[in-house]
Amino acid sequence: MSLAIKSIKSLVPLLDRVLVQRIKAEAKTTGGIFLPESSVKELNEAKVLAVGPGALDREGKRLAMSVKAGDKVLIPTFGGTKITVAEEDFSIFRDHELLAKISE
Amino acid sequence: MSLAIKSIKSLVPLLDRVLVQRIKAEAKTTGGIFLPESSVKELNEAKVLAVGPGALDREGKRLAMSVKAGDKVLIPTFGGTKITVAEEDFSIFRDHELLAKISE
Amino acid sequence: MSLAIKSIKSLVPLLDRVLVQRIKAEAKTTGGIFLPESSVKELNEAKVLAVGPGALDREGKRLAMSVKAGDKVLIPTFGGTKITVAEEDFSIFRDHELLAKISE
Amino acid sequence: MSLAIKSIKSLVPLLDRVLVQRIKAEAKTTGGIFLPESSVKELNEAKVLAVGPGALDREGKRLAMSVKAGDKVLIPTFGGTKITVAEEDFSIFRDHELLAKISE
Amino acid sequence: MSLAIKSIKSLVPLLDRVLVQRIKAEAKTTGGIFLPESSVKELNEAKVLAVGPGALDREGKRLAMSVKAGDKVLIPTFGGTKITVAEEDFSIFRDHELLAKISE
Amino acid sequence: MSLAIKSIKSLVPLLDRVLVQRIKAEAKTTGGIFLPESSVKELNEAKVLAVGPGALDREGKRLAMSVKAGDKVLIPTFGGTKITVAEEDFSIFRDHELLAKISE
Amino acid sequence: MSLAIKSIKSLVPLLDRVLVQRIKAEAKTTGGIFLPESSVKELNEAKVLAVGPGALDREGKRLAMSVKAGDKVLIPTFGGTKITVAEEDFSIFRDHELLAKISE
Repeated sequence: MSLAIKSIKSLVPLLDRVLVQRIKAEAKTTGGIFLPESSVKELNEAKVLAVGPGALDREGKRLAMSVKAGDKVLIPTFGGTKITVAEEDFSIFRDHELLAKISE
Repeated sequence: MSLAIKSIKSLVPLLDRVLVQRIKAEAKTTGGIFLPESSVKELNEAKVLAVGPGALDREGKRLAMSVKAGDKVLIPTFGGTKITVAEEDFSIFRDHELLAKISE
Repeated sequence: MSLAIKSIKSLVPLLDRVLVQRIKAEAKTTGGIFLPESSVKELNEAKVLAVGPGALDREGKRLAMSVKAGDKVLIPTFGGTKITVAEEDFSIFRDHELLAKISE
Repeated sequence: MSLAIKSIKSLVPLLDRVLVQRIKAEAKTTGGIFLPESSVKELNEAKVLAVGPGALDREGKRLAMSVKAGDKVLIPTFGGTKITVAEEDFSIFRDHELLAKISE
Repeated sequence: MSLAIKSIKSLVPLLDRVLVQRIKAEAKTTGGIFLPESSVKELNEAKVLAVGPGALDREGKRLAMSVKAGDKVLIPTFGGTKITVAEEDFSIFRDHELLAKISE
Repeated sequence: MSLAIKSIKSLVPLLDRVLVQRIKAEAKTTGGIFLPESSVKELNEAKVLAVGPGALDREGKRLAMSVKAGDKVLIPTFGGTKITVAEEDFSIFRDHELLAKISE
Repeated sequence: MSLAIKSIKSLVPLLDRVLVQRIKAEAKTTGGIFLPESSVKELNEAKVLAVGPGALDREGKRLAMSVKAGDKVLIPTFGGTKITVAEEDFSIFRDHELLAKISE
């Protein structure tokens, strides 16, 4: 999915959606040797850039979101909507699809 | 889906439906060179033209809509109902199908 | 679905059903030339002839209908039940299947 | 489905079920000429013979039925349970499957 | 499904289940002539032997059963669980699967 | 499913799960003759060894279980999770999958 | 699913998710003889490392979790999300997927 917007900061997720960006695996070994791109594994860790206001329950109240902007999260291998802004890749997930928060 | 109405302004979405029009990608490069139509990508950005009054919850109350006329939104690649009025294309989505609002 | 009743006015939709009749596309061009039948497009605009009392919510109360007899509506391309009375075609939809009201 | 009971009047529908009998199309033309059986169309009009007490909502209360014994109704082409009593055919539908009441 | 229990009376249905036994079609004609077994039709009439206490609604209360032991009922052609006790066949249905009560 | 635990008594079912053990069919005839293993039918009768605390309803309260440890029950032919502890076979069912209690 | 985090302790499950690690079957017999790896069965016993705060009910309240960190549990053969941290394997399940607690 391609967008014409200049900055990802223009995107404000709706309902219980969460905008994330995958964290890139380091392209060098712990010993400092750079790895060829093809041997870099795609990680399931992502940084939360923005969150929606929450889904509506049956009485029209917002359900609390599990994460907030700045959180690091574990995302599932499948699902989510991939978007590209200014040649960078991002994903949108529903709050309940995120598996875990990563504390550091 | 083809309609005989003269103006898209005659359409008033029902329940939680949202009437949108895709924003056209610029057919010229940033350097000002015009691109052939076939190389223009279809964008997932759209402008909200009209919104329904909201779906009914189980007690007959309206659930709040996430967007309003004039908003710019990120629409999913699939889904929605395509309609053509006066040779222009529009789409109708349910409120919960819209992915994000685009602020500028 | 074929009926022996003489008039469509005998049909009273149940629950949240809506009885509509498609509006026929004009079989002549704006310039006044009559078109052969095969080139007339089928429109998705319809006139509401009668509406049911509304579906029951979980406490037995009626949920409000979105349209009323006399409204012009945008109907989906698929779905609905086609019926024929006195050689004229009609359709029955559920209220939530109707896409938009057409104001004029 | 075949039953040994002598009279259809012994059947008392349960919950939101409705016992109906299709109305037979007249086997002669309006001009009085008798039609061969194979050219008689099967109608979707039926007479309601008996109705159940209504389905239970989540709190154990009965939901109102839309029709009552004696009503003429429009039944869907598919669905329902066909039963045969004393060589006559009947059908059982759920209340929400009936499309419209036929007033005369 | 085969059981080692001696008597069907040992079975107490759980939740909204209903234990029934099909009524056998008479193996002789009304004129008194005995029919060969292969020409006896299987009936959808059954006698209720025992009923469960009712399913639980969302607040933990029992929902009323539609039938009671001793009732004659119309059972659907498909569904239900067949069990055999002491070489006799029985079936277990959910209350809402039963079509009608048979009054006599 | 194989476990390393020494005793089935270590297993405490969660939510609305029920731990049962099938009752073995007697491997001899009523006349006292021992039957070869291959001719012994597998029974759908089982003994309840342990039950969970009950599923949670939508307000977080426990829904009552239908059976308790020591009950004899009729289990369905399909479904359930088979487990093996110390070379003996057991099954875990959800409370609502059990068909009937067997009283003696 | 591969992660770059150094320690599994950084993972904090969301909603009703449970982070577990399978218990390894002993690679030697009770008599003390070491078994070749290929003959070691994979067990369905796991240790709970961390649990989420609980799913939200329809009014936004947390539903109680069935297990807590340190519990030993019986996990299903299928389902769950497999993750690898620092070359060790872990799984994430939803609370209701866990079959039983293992008490010792």
